[in-house]
Amino acid sequence: MSAIHHPHHLPTSISSSTSAFLGQNNFNTRTQSVPLPVRSNGSCKCVATPSAEKSANTTKVSRNANMAKLQAGYLFPEVARRKAAHMLKYPDAEVISLGIGDTTEPIPEVITSAMAKRSNALSTIEGYSGYGAEQGEKPLRAAIAKAFYGHLGIEEDDIFVSDGAKSDISRLQVLFGSDVTMAVQDPSYPAYVDSSVIMGQTKQFQKDIEKYANIEYMSCTPENGFFPDLSKVSRTDIIFFCSPNNPTGSAASREQLTRLVQFAKDNGSIIVYDSAYALYISDDNPRSIFEIPGAKEIAIETSSFSKYAGFTGVRLGWTVVPKQLLYSDGFPVAKDFNRIVCTCFNGASNIAQSGALACVSPDGLKAIHEVIGFYKENADIIMDTFNSLGFNVYGGKNAPYVWVHFPGRSSWDVFSEILEKTHVVTTPGSGFGPGGEGFVRVSAFCHRSNVLEACRRFKQLYK
Amino acid sequence: MSAIHHPHHLPTSISSSTSAFLGQNNFNTRTQSVPLPVRSNGSCKCVATPSAEKSANTTKVSRNANMAKLQAGYLFPEVARRKAAHMLKYPDAEVISLGIGDTTEPIPEVITSAMAKRSNALSTIEGYSGYGAEQGEKPLRAAIAKAFYGHLGIEEDDIFVSDGAKSDISRLQVLFGSDVTMAVQDPSYPAYVDSSVIMGQTKQFQKDIEKYANIEYMSCTPENGFFPDLSKVSRTDIIFFCSPNNPTGSAASREQLTRLVQFAKDNGSIIVYDSAYALYISDDNPRSIFEIPGAKEIAIETSSFSKYAGFTGVRLGWTVVPKQLLYSDGFPVAKDFNRIVCTCFNGASNIAQSGALACVSPDGLKAIHEVIGFYKENADIIMDTFNSLGFNVYGGKNAPYVWVHFPGRSSWDVFSEILEKTHVVTTPGSGFGPGGEGFVRVSAFCHRSNVLEACRRFKQLYK
Repeated sequence: MSAIHHPHHLPTSISSSTSAFLGQNNFNTRTQSVPLPVRSNGSCKCVATPSAEKSANTTKVSRNANMAKLQAGYLFPEVARRKAAHMLKYPDAEVISLGIGDTTEPIPEVITSAMAKRSNALSTIEGYSGYGAEQGEKPLRAAIAKAFYGHLGIEEDDIFVSDGAKSDISRLQVLFGSDVTMAVQDPSYPAYVDSSVIMGQTKQFQKDIEKYANIEYMSCTPENGFFPDLSKVSRTDIIFFCSPNNPTGSAASREQLTRLVQFAKDNGSIIVYDSAYALYISDDNPRSIFEIPGAKEIAIETSSFSKYAGFTGVRLGWTVVPKQLLYSDGFPVAKDFNRIVCTCFNGASNIAQSGALACVSPDGLKAIHEVIGFYKENADIIMDTFNSLGFNVYGGKNAPYVWVHFPGRSSWDVFSEILEKTHVVTTPGSGFGPGGEGFVRVSAFCHRSNVLEACRRFKQLYK
Repeated sequence: MSAIHHPHHLPTSISSSTSAFLGQNNFNTRTQSVPLPVRSNGSCKCVATPSAEKSANTTKVSRNANMAKLQAGYLFPEVARRKAAHMLKYPDAEVISLGIGDTTEPIPEVITSAMAKRSNALSTIEGYSGYGAEQGEKPLRAAIAKAFYGHLGIEEDDIFVSDGAKSDISRLQVLFGSDVTMAVQDPSYPAYVDSSVIMGQTKQFQKDIEKYANIEYMSCTPENGFFPDLSKVSRTDIIFFCSPNNPTGSAASREQLTRLVQFAKDNGSIIVYDSAYALYISDDNPRSIFEIPGAKEIAIETSSFSKYAGFTGVRLGWTVVPKQLLYSDGFPVAKDFNRIVCTCFNGASNIAQSGALACVSPDGLKAIHEVIGFYKENADIIMDTFNSLGFNVYGGKNAPYVWVHFPGRSSWDVFSEILEKTHVVTTPGSGFGPGGEGFVRVSAFCHRSNVLEACRRFKQLYK
C-alpha cells in the first residue's frame, strides 16, 4: 500500500483490499515515519512519529503483545481516513456519508432543554452536584428499568448507566478477563472482536481465513436468515449477540432467541446481548433478550441512547446485569461488574444523564420515536433503490442499516468504486469480519436530501 | 464483622480494622445473602443477591481470578457505605463530609453557560453534531496543549481528551496489559493498584504485609518528605506517580522530579504522572512532569478538570502521551493508546468538552483559579486547626488534602472515632495502602460553613 505524503500527512491513495479487518497491518513498521490516523469530524489529523533512532530513546517496556495482534486500524477511523483522503483528491465533490452509523438529525428540544437546564443549574448552590453514583443516578436507573424492561423483572439495581455501549463492551471484557472464550456473529460490530484481542482472549490473526484463533465465528448469511446454525457452534464462555444486528440489519425472532437462550443454558455460557437498535424493530420480534424466559440467568444486555436520541456525541448508554446471573462458583456477575464500574469508571456525565431522563419521559419517548421513524423512512428509500437495481438487499426493516450483496466482489473494491464514482461513503462488509465479504453496509443515518441524492447517484452507477 | 440487616439491607455496625484496603474480603461469601453497596449521593442502595441454590442456576463461566484477588470494596464506596450506615444510626445528626474528594462549589457561570449553549445547539440543524473524534475535539486538544503545556513542546496531537483521569488510568492499564510490572507511591490513590490487580499484573494480596505481590510500593513518609528513596526502589516497567499527591497532599520539587525522571531513564521505565491537582501548587514546584527535560521520552501525564472546575460530575479529563515515548521495540506508545481510545472509548461528551473549552478560556481560567483559591483557604483552616491541636499535619499547602498523623493508631479506628464523636466523615489513610496507616486524610472540598463547623468539632474532640 503506497502512501504519498501530503503536507497534512494524509495518505492520498485508496487501495482496495480483499482481507478482512483492513488487511495488512500497516502500522507495524517501526523504522519509518508512519502517520497515525485520528478521526476529527470528517477531516483527518495525523500524529507524525519520529523516524526513530531506535535504542537511543526507547524505553525498556515491551509493547503489549495483544495490541500487536490487532490488524490495522479500527474500522471506522479507517473509513473516515479514506473519506478524508477522497476529499483531498476531489476537493469540490459533494461527499455524502452513509458510512459510519452516525446520527445526523437534531436532538429533540425536550431533551436538549433538560440538558441545558442541568448545565445552568450546576452554577448554582442548590443545583450543583459533584460525583454521582458510579452506576448512574437513581431516578435514571429506575426510569430505564421501567421504560425498557417494565414487565420483564429487571429492576433499578440491575441497570448500570454508562457513557455508551462501546465503553461498556470494553469494561465487560475487562470484567471477564483473558481466560474466557468468546463467540461472535460473523459479521459483527468490530468492537467485540477487537476488545477480545486486546484483553488477550485470542491467539494470532490467521491471514488465510481472516479470523483470530480462539474466537468462535458464528456465520450469519442470507442462507441461514442471518441467524447462526447453533448445531455448528462450539461452546464458548461468552456469546456476543447483536439484534437488530449491526451490520446486517437483521432482527432475531422470538423463536430464534429462545433457541439461543437454550443453547447458552445448555452450555453454561453468558450472552452479551447488544440491543442498541431495539427500538428500530417494526414487527413483534423481541426488543430485549429478557423477553425470553430464563434469560436473566444467562444474559447481560447493553444498550444506548446514541441511535435513539442522536446521543452519539452526548454519550449515554446502559448495561443490564441481572442479579440472577452467576459465575460457576455462584458468585454474582453483577458484583464484579459493580467493582469494575467503581474502579475503572466514575459514572456518566450528569448532564448527559439529565438528557437521558428526558428521553424516557412520555414526551421524550414520543420525540425519540419520531426521530427513529425518520431514519426508518431513510432505510426504506435506500432499500427500494437497491431493490429496484436488482440487488439482493437485507436488513433495513428493523434497523437503520441496509446490507447490500455484491456476490463475488471484494467489499473494499465495492466501497472504493462507490466512493470514487458517486462520492458516497459506505462501509465495506468485510470490515465486520470475513462473513461480511461481498457486502456493503449502507447507513440510514443521513439528512433526507442527502439520502435522496445518494440514491440518485446509486441509480446512475448501477442502472 | 457483624452486619445487622436493616430493612434497607445496610450493615449498621461500623467496625474498625487495622488492615489496608478495608481488611477482610467480606464479599467473598457465596452461600449467604450479601449486600452490594452502591453509592448514591450519600445514601446507600444495595443489591440483594440471591441466597444461591448454587449449581441450579449458575453458568459454567469461571469468575475472573484477578477480580477475586481484590480486597473488599473500592475505598470510596466503602467510605460512603459507612457514612450512610452512620446516618441511619444517627438520623438527626448533621453529618459533614470531608471524606471523598468531591467538589462542593458551583461551577463558574462562564463554564456552565457554554455547556447550556452547546446543549441547546444540539437541537438545531446547524448546531447538531454526532460522533466527535475519539481523541477529543480539535480546538479543545489545542487549547489544553496551549493552556497547560504552552512552552513544554507538548502538541495538540499528544493530548487525548477523556471522561476523566480514573477512566484513563484504567485504559492505560489495558494498554500496558498483564505482563508489565508497576510501582506506586505508598500511600496512593487506590485506582492505580486496583486496576493493576484487575489487569492481572499482580499476584495475591499478602495479608501479613497488606500488599499485593508483584507491585513495588514506594514508601512515602514524613521522614523522606513523602518522596521515595529511589535507591531502595526496584526497577518496574511502569511507575505511577501523583503530584501534588493524593492522599498526602505533598508536591514533589523540581529537583525530586529530575531524579525521578533520571531513575526512569536509567531503568527504561514509563512514568504515569497524575497531575490532577497541579493547579493547587502555590510555590514553584513543577505543575507538569514535562517541565523536566527529557520527560517526553519516558512519561505519560493524566489530568482532569474535576478538581479545578468542579467537574467531578460533568466528567472531563485528558491524558498526554507524547509521540516521543517509545516501547523497547521503537513502537510509539501513542499509537497503541490511540487504538485503545478508538476501540474501547468513543470520546467524551461533546457538552462536557464545550465546558472544558470554556475552562481554558481567559475568563474560565480566572474563574477556575478563584474556585481553587477557595478550597485552598479551606485547607488552610483545616491545617491550622490540627496544628493548633498539636498534631503533625502534612499537605494542604499545594493540595486540597490535609494529611493528619495519629501515630500508633489504626486509621480506621480514628476514622470511626471522628465519625462517631463529631459526625464528620474523613478518609482512613490505610485505605490508600499500608503506608497510610496511622494517618487520616481530611479533604478541603466543602462549603466554608461546614469546614468551620467541622473544625469546631475537631477542637472539641481533640482539645
